[in-house]
Amino acid sequence: MWQTTSMRCLYQPARDELSLPSVLYSLSDPVRLRIVQLLAESSDRPCGTFGIPLAKATISHHFKVLREAGVVSVRGEGTQRLNSLRRDDLESRFPGLLDAVLRATDTAATRLPVTAASA
Amino acid sequence: MWQTTSMRCLYQPARDELSLPSVLYSLSDPVRLRIVQLLAESSDRPCGTFGIPLAKATISHHFKVLREAGVVSVRGEGTQRLNSLRRDDLESRFPGLLDAVLRATDTAATRLPVTAASA
Repeated sequence: MWQTTSMRCLYQPARDELSLPSVLYSLSDPVRLRIVQLLAESSDRPCGTFGIPLAKATISHHFKVLREAGVVSVRGEGTQRLNSLRRDDLESRFPGLLDAVLRATDTAATRLPVTAASA
Repeated sequence: MWQTTSMRCLYQPARDELSLPSVLYSLSDPVRLRIVQLLAESSDRPCGTFGIPLAKATISHHFKVLREAGVVSVRGEGTQRLNSLRRDDLESRFPGLLDAVLRATDTAATRLPVTAASA
């Protein structure tokens, strides 16, 4: 499944193409977990609003991993890319998984990166 | 936490050392998911009984990743290493996560490797 934005075509797997190992891999990083956590709070969020203190290219890489695994969807609006969590697709394919991960990220022990801008 | 077996000392994290990214990473591979699936059916299982058609060194690597993430525990008995799933520790730290992963591995769409020996 290819999503055309104003910038270029971005690959996003269809619901029945989601793979459990790929989804788990995409969630196996503290920065990507933080992105997922923030998207669970508000969808249609532009990349620049996550307050992650890393280089732009590094952040883009993390979004790409999440998008290609099917965890995050991206749609273009004007010159912006708006990101959302694919809650329904994930719940349909792997019931309870996203909720369990989000619950786990709520505990302090996961030590996710938080900055003033994202808190 | 170090577990002494008849062979050597093996690192296994204590419950409060379990890290969500490490656990998710350890589960992000079809072979490791298959190991976890089989350990959910029967514990105290020696490495050689999983029917995985891969080189011994590759299989050892997969068990090491699972052990060091705290998903699998290993104890020595004579010359054998017996593997078990750390269900209680995982459930305590990340409630619902292991069950959600195991449910997802039950669906045919996860395309896990299965051999005659392990079926």
